[in-house]
Amino acid sequence: MTVKIGLVGTGTVGGGCIELLKKHTADYKSRYGLDLQLARVCSKEPAQAEEHSVADIFTEEYTDIVNDPEIDIVIELVGGTTIAKKIVCEALEAGKHVVTANKALLATYGEEIEALAAKNGCKLYYEASVGGGIPIIGPLKHSLNASEITSILGIVNGTTNYMLTRMASDGMDYDDVLAEAQAKGYAEADPTADVDGLDAAAKIAIMASIAFNTRVTIDQVACEGIRSITPADLAAAKDMGYCVKLLAVANRTDAGIEVRVHPAMVPVDHPLATVDGVFNAIYVVGDFIGPTMYFGQGAGSDPTASAVIGDVLELVGHIQAGTGALPGNTYTDNLPLVSTDDLVTRAYIRFQVVERPGVLAAMSAVFAKHEVSVHSVIQRGVGTEEADTVELVYVTHSAREADLRATLDDIAKLENVLVGPEPTLIRVIK
Amino acid sequence: MTVKIGLVGTGTVGGGCIELLKKHTADYKSRYGLDLQLARVCSKEPAQAEEHSVADIFTEEYTDIVNDPEIDIVIELVGGTTIAKKIVCEALEAGKHVVTANKALLATYGEEIEALAAKNGCKLYYEASVGGGIPIIGPLKHSLNASEITSILGIVNGTTNYMLTRMASDGMDYDDVLAEAQAKGYAEADPTADVDGLDAAAKIAIMASIAFNTRVTIDQVACEGIRSITPADLAAAKDMGYCVKLLAVANRTDAGIEVRVHPAMVPVDHPLATVDGVFNAIYVVGDFIGPTMYFGQGAGSDPTASAVIGDVLELVGHIQAGTGALPGNTYTDNLPLVSTDDLVTRAYIRFQVVERPGVLAAMSAVFAKHEVSVHSVIQRGVGTEEADTVELVYVTHSAREADLRATLDDIAKLENVLVGPEPTLIRVIK
Repeated sequence: MTVKIGLVGTGTVGGGCIELLKKHTADYKSRYGLDLQLARVCSKEPAQAEEHSVADIFTEEYTDIVNDPEIDIVIELVGGTTIAKKIVCEALEAGKHVVTANKALLATYGEEIEALAAKNGCKLYYEASVGGGIPIIGPLKHSLNASEITSILGIVNGTTNYMLTRMASDGMDYDDVLAEAQAKGYAEADPTADVDGLDAAAKIAIMASIAFNTRVTIDQVACEGIRSITPADLAAAKDMGYCVKLLAVANRTDAGIEVRVHPAMVPVDHPLATVDGVFNAIYVVGDFIGPTMYFGQGAGSDPTASAVIGDVLELVGHIQAGTGALPGNTYTDNLPLVSTDDLVTRAYIRFQVVERPGVLAAMSAVFAKHEVSVHSVIQRGVGTEEADTVELVYVTHSAREADLRATLDDIAKLENVLVGPEPTLIRVIK
Repeated sequence: MTVKIGLVGTGTVGGGCIELLKKHTADYKSRYGLDLQLARVCSKEPAQAEEHSVADIFTEEYTDIVNDPEIDIVIELVGGTTIAKKIVCEALEAGKHVVTANKALLATYGEEIEALAAKNGCKLYYEASVGGGIPIIGPLKHSLNASEITSILGIVNGTTNYMLTRMASDGMDYDDVLAEAQAKGYAEADPTADVDGLDAAAKIAIMASIAFNTRVTIDQVACEGIRSITPADLAAAKDMGYCVKLLAVANRTDAGIEVRVHPAMVPVDHPLATVDGVFNAIYVVGDFIGPTMYFGQGAGSDPTASAVIGDVLELVGHIQAGTGALPGNTYTDNLPLVSTDDLVTRAYIRFQVVERPGVLAAMSAVFAKHEVSVHSVIQRGVGTEEADTVELVYVTHSAREADLRATLDDIAKLENVLVGPEPTLIRVIK
């Protein structure tokens, strides 16, 4: 069976797809009887087409692809939510199947786009949108769906995981490690999407939607990044038997679903604790299946291209088998989202205080007032110029987010408590 | 859509399936529009049927299921390769789709059974046959298949992983930890299938067949178990920065494919090193996708049942979509198997020797004679009654299996070298 593919986007992942198809097209033909033909390639960068030797099938107009009746599958690797949306929607309207790695698009307009695909009898595959090469969308949609998924904890942003790993292992501070990550090409010149957790928020919105059969969009994800994390926090975490990871979290609770992104203290014996550097991992717990984890390279040209072409192969397998639209998620459970104020977690909170009689008592009174129960408090020496400044590290029992925030606000007003740009609060994962 | 299921086998996994269906059938109906009806249950244990409250649909004759024209899908959870084979083949011949967790059956008669399924236009799913609840067959067949898989390293037997973990952490010896594992129900009264690596061999045969698109059967797997591993080996491993795991290994090399099971030294910073106790994990490397890992509970009622019913859901999804037989693996690459003699690995070898002048020189000469290059040799004190007996631990560079074996045989003949029931040789994974 011959299938013609139109590829839009020739950057990192698009280039990887071209190279992968060059290397393995003959294998797919001999193994599966599938002849994948890259019929047309589009981008705004003719030089990239030259680089990958596809100038003969290159165009700068995506309409040359979506309007070409010969093309069966459109791969969208442009990214973003503007032109990418036009490409995907016009391809579906033209009756073409679509494979995309575009997390922002799916986490924003997933409902509209999936409805359009269904209306046109087309398939929309997006394994590469979460975790790069790691197969996670497939397992969540199949296999794992026999269980009721109760929790997802994901390290799904390689940039911030690299930064936190470097800060923890080498004591570098945030600004230095960000500069290094930018120099190495791991972080963008504008690092906002990574360091503020927005990239992770899109990915957990996509995973939570499937796992809970309930639409979750990126704007519904409570999101905190890693800008306020200091080497002191990482050192304190280590001493307490934790490491700090930026986690994308989705939990099913009696009150509804929690979907959020924030730095978290992860116990060193947790499977996620050893996931270092640019690697990603997603830890999924279900009622029957128990805990499972999926680990691999969460970004990069080759791994992500492997996931994209894996989708193409599965899609073509279904076309070859004469399948109509496979029944997919219906997103009909419509579980309520727990409000940020009502999120319940344990918390690590670090304050700098001037060592004076009564400071600890005053702080303890604030915790008590807001009914936040303290599990431990440890004084840690610090290397400031003021000899009488120390750090107090609190770990609380489970508490409501609103109560934790109120506690922080009130303690910040106390005499002899020094507060940075924002108080350091890191959730603690059991 | 209504689908009628016949279940054969009401033991650990079968019981889990019954309970899972009881809990989640309504969810599948509301989420996916699939009405899974457990129509008939068969086993030789009526008491188990009573226990799970399915006495009304119980039969002791599997023919009541395979001959029932109403039944669409047969779940085979009997195990073994005799009656299970009859059940699976008769079900397929009657035009029923089959879901099974039977690794021995697939690793022995996979080719015959898959051909029978294809001939009858039926599907055969077996996610639960490897890694219990861990989705690994699905990712290998889809998603990962865009890359060329170069290596699989699996901890796929929970019994032996539990035993090795206990031996390493608590210094217990093999016999004591086996007795404990049997008392806890982790090991069978006859532990052969687990401790001699046969269970793992079936699983790697199945995975290698898919990953290399080449039929590999259980009898082609070079197989060594853990009986000769001692606490001394685990202590030496720890000191050298390794842990010992029973690994199922499949490698693609220029000379062909290597498929084997043996204990291995795994570096402590390898993702597999932290997989302890009864957990399983499979580490898969592909040319584009790079390293990935899949972790979870490799056995047990609930996780395995989750994988079985996950297969049923996917199967029903395909039936509902009107799919014919999906194109599956063709196993047509027919890669040659590298003979055991030609396997190339680094090796850890431990000897007990009587401390006499010339012993080390004599041993070194044997290594040199067989062209086995020694990376390090360390003398370790031991607590034997003979004060002049010491242990010598060699780690070699990469060497051929046949040369390693010849070295061991020749050294065993040397004066002042004491040899146990078999010399301790453990492969070292990079």
